Amino acid sequence: MTKRIEFQTDPSRYKHWRVEYDGDVANLFMDVNEDAGLFDGYQLKLNSYDLGVDIELADIVQRMRFEHPEVKVVVMQSGKEKVFCAGANIRMLGGASHAHKVNFCKFTNETRNTFEAAEADSGQKYIAAVKGACAGGGYELALACNHIMLTDDSSSAVSLPEVPLLAVLPGTGGLTRVTDKRKMRRDLADVFCSLEEGVKGKRAVQWRLVDEVIANSKFDATVVERAKEFAAASNKATGKGISLTPLKRTINDDGSMQYSLVEVEIDRKARRATITLSGPDGDVPASLDALHTQGDQGYMLRLARELDDAILQLRLNEMEVGLLVFRTQGDPEALLAHEAFLLENKADWLANEILAYWKRLLKRIDVTSRSMIALVEHGSCFAGVLAELLWSVDRTYMMEDEFEGDNRPLATITLSATNFGEFPMGNALTRLETRFLGEPEAVDVLKGKIGEPLDAEAANEAGLVTYIFDDIDWEDEIRIFMEERASFSPDAMTGMEANLRFAGPETMETRIFGRLTAWQNWIFIRPNATGPDGALQRYGTGVRGEYDMNRV
Amino acid sequence: MTKRIEFQTDPSRYKHWRVEYDGDVANLFMDVNEDAGLFDGYQLKLNSYDLGVDIELADIVQRMRFEHPEVKVVVMQSGKEKVFCAGANIRMLGGASHAHKVNFCKFTNETRNTFEAAEADSGQKYIAAVKGACAGGGYELALACNHIMLTDDSSSAVSLPEVPLLAVLPGTGGLTRVTDKRKMRRDLADVFCSLEEGVKGKRAVQWRLVDEVIANSKFDATVVERAKEFAAASNKATGKGISLTPLKRTINDDGSMQYSLVEVEIDRKARRATITLSGPDGDVPASLDALHTQGDQGYMLRLARELDDAILQLRLNEMEVGLLVFRTQGDPEALLAHEAFLLENKADWLANEILAYWKRLLKRIDVTSRSMIALVEHGSCFAGVLAELLWSVDRTYMMEDEFEGDNRPLATITLSATNFGEFPMGNALTRLETRFLGEPEAVDVLKGKIGEPLDAEAANEAGLVTYIFDDIDWEDEIRIFMEERASFSPDAMTGMEANLRFAGPETMETRIFGRLTAWQNWIFIRPNATGPDGALQRYGTGVRGEYDMNRV
Repeated sequence: MTKRIEFQTDPSRYKHWRVEYDGDVANLFMDVNEDAGLFDGYQLKLNSYDLGVDIELADIVQRMRFEHPEVKVVVMQSGKEKVFCAGANIRMLGGASHAHKVNFCKFTNETRNTFEAAEADSGQKYIAAVKGACAGGGYELALACNHIMLTDDSSSAVSLPEVPLLAVLPGTGGLTRVTDKRKMRRDLADVFCSLEEGVKGKRAVQWRLVDEVIANSKFDATVVERAKEFAAASNKATGKGISLTPLKRTINDDGSMQYSLVEVEIDRKARRATITLSGPDGDVPASLDALHTQGDQGYMLRLARELDDAILQLRLNEMEVGLLVFRTQGDPEALLAHEAFLLENKADWLANEILAYWKRLLKRIDVTSRSMIALVEHGSCFAGVLAELLWSVDRTYMMEDEFEGDNRPLATITLSATNFGEFPMGNALTRLETRFLGEPEAVDVLKGKIGEPLDAEAANEAGLVTYIFDDIDWEDEIRIFMEERASFSPDAMTGMEANLRFAGPETMETRIFGRLTAWQNWIFIRPNATGPDGALQRYGTGVRGEYDMNRV
Repeated sequence: MTKRIEFQTDPSRYKHWRVEYDGDVANLFMDVNEDAGLFDGYQLKLNSYDLGVDIELADIVQRMRFEHPEVKVVVMQSGKEKVFCAGANIRMLGGASHAHKVNFCKFTNETRNTFEAAEADSGQKYIAAVKGACAGGGYELALACNHIMLTDDSSSAVSLPEVPLLAVLPGTGGLTRVTDKRKMRRDLADVFCSLEEGVKGKRAVQWRLVDEVIANSKFDATVVERAKEFAAASNKATGKGISLTPLKRTINDDGSMQYSLVEVEIDRKARRATITLSGPDGDVPASLDALHTQGDQGYMLRLARELDDAILQLRLNEMEVGLLVFRTQGDPEALLAHEAFLLENKADWLANEILAYWKRLLKRIDVTSRSMIALVEHGSCFAGVLAELLWSVDRTYMMEDEFEGDNRPLATITLSATNFGEFPMGNALTRLETRFLGEPEAVDVLKGKIGEPLDAEAANEAGLVTYIFDDIDWEDEIRIFMEERASFSPDAMTGMEANLRFAGPETMETRIFGRLTAWQNWIFIRPNATGPDGALQRYGTGVRGEYDMNRV
């Protein structure tokens, strides 16, 4: 599986989904083309999915927010008879590398978190209308919806058969949402997760697995009714959508990438990617109308889309790049003005969506399994939303005083109101709150510095950066750090970063990425699951996996 | 490493630790005998430890609570020059099986949690008095103490060098306590965990790694002073300790074990152990004096010690036993009377310690990586503290109505006050609160049923058991379940149970066992750490581990 994975798509190219828009309700049909898998060697039978199916879903969810702000309710359903969705494709999993499996799970988790959060962030509520078998990843899709409706017939059931059938976990949030969202009794959850055939009918409601079960004859009508009801109850701000046009991007042979505002340079020998973000290349929109007219060409949205794509490209296509270095160049005042415009106009659906997108994007960076640093250089614009990067990464280095031959403006960091609540992490705290868990009073002090450009000494004093270096030390110190980091075991880095990045309270999100994912990763490299005689290889042969019965 | 591991020891047999009692202060010296490793093939140099060293520490911590209730402050220190503790022994880790490594980490984590909790539970405060190198597991020992003092000299430093040196994590709570107990800034934590040489002097205080740093010349005197100060501030209930005498236990050739109140039967072919606990074999102590005179022969303490030992024996010595079946037989009223006596006398140090021990023991069961069920049979005594087992295990089956030829009293479950707060889980909720996370009102309803023997129908109605079966179905249903469970992949079971058992809020404990442990387990089977050319095998050869540089 070494072909380059592409995350950009659009409705004209969908192979697996279709959407029918009907005023404030969108009907989303999963209808997977079994011959259109992302890789060779498997068929996507029974609405099973691979990363390609999920990339389309992520695109739909994103376009639903930006292109269809009129939509208040999305009804997720199957385009096939007798099956809602059979989950992740097993042959694909059986053939995929460990890293691909892990990255696939992470991306699908992010997509599910995104549509789960659409209700709170944008007033878009997802209903899962389940007819037919809804198994494994299929039920995990439903679990991430805000409301689950199940038809009451002999063949429609929800199930998480991963453990008995495949010797792996329902790892796309399944176990976590069963305990912490659906709040199932743990002994019933144990029964449910051991039952290949799953649970149907009234019992599915009693066990809290679905919100309602409806006689088959009334199902379609009830779904329509429920969607209308939810739509009527929503006070979502709406308007005319904008278009998300294809990104302008060049990918060079050496893997480096140029976008309009983002540049990614890859040093393969050093296993490092440097991501440089540009400050605003245009003025703040003169009005809300202007913001809408700019659409996806407006600075803040364009930067987010480009950076999002760059991160995904690096995650899935550059496996040996262990260190991401974030740089910015531009005018911090101009950046803050763009951000302030969005904040002031948050009641507008588009301004709100752009801010919510940055929240998601920053979370995606938080859970990116690469070592990450930020370099606050002269001429940089780490202000407001871009300052969040400084605390999303593992370490931050900042230039102090003048550098010989460098006439860019001296490096500063400027806080804005958004650093105090607009972009919470997965743990529901701001990055500053997480950073200063041991001295919460420091956050209050920082609030007093909003809008004040902090030079290296002031930023260091305030605890905003890890190290400051002057012209004499800068290059050497950073080179030494990067060489050292590149020499460490990538696995140890992944584990260390997953543990250090999320202090404080836990949420379903941190639990999915922190606990569930870690156990799944462990199981993914155990021979019982993925060995030559393991369950994933043996699946479909009629012969069960051969298990080492030692408990660990 | 297949020799039988024994958890019982006593001070006369210690090889690695010594304790000097000095009124309300105990001085605990770690002085590891490098030639007395639990297994062959390594030397325990530089106060490094293996499971044998930790078994002694666990014994000390336990005896400190029961034999030395006069102790208010324990000063943990090194008996060697220039080194506090070098952490877990690397050669031992390099040679150990995956399962042994994981079990070793779990046991050491439990011991650290136990002495960390001694302040809140028993008014016993632990000070780490650090002189010399305090590295890896050595610093994790210190991190679990309530107060860390570091001497200020050129060679004394705290460090977590696992990642750079060994390509594994500081997995005995290190990463979690750095972020969530010490509340270090995450970028500084990143630096700290990448620094082989660690941090010393004032910077260790600034970075929140230790509570105080003291000039070498004044160190010993300051430690004495601090211990006195803490002791004076404690209002711990004290008295004359009791003796923890050796358990009476028979281990048969087939692995089955008999204690005075606990019987463990092993069906190796079915990979199952049945643990039967007996109800009281004596009257409730007539007075507090009588409780103290009975000492470790009193029912509640004896049962706890025997069950604790049985669980540890099964965990470390019976790796293929995948299912633990809990049974009880005895008089529930008598059991409740014993328990009520302790609760009424909680102001007495011994009564308090026995209850606190049950809390720890139940938590040990919660995190035991085996499938567990309870069978509520006729003649059983699942009441009060023993009823907690019903919600600690994964599923519970209960007998309904009369069984032919069975004249034992009909099965009942009786709740007591202790089920509503005395024995919180690692997530700080009671087992009932966790069970009914989705319907908290159910817990209030249950409070109204305290003291009322609930038969199968009533228990089922109240959601206290998973299934009830009558004489016709009982045997078949349980047999089918057990056969099915025994056929599943043990790894998948471990992962599933770790995710289903701890819903609701997270604490340092759940994070250590849920997140940190899972990542460490993953790393423990990655070739970068444990492969033939991995860091653990290469350690000490002067050649670094050979790493696959792909990021996952």
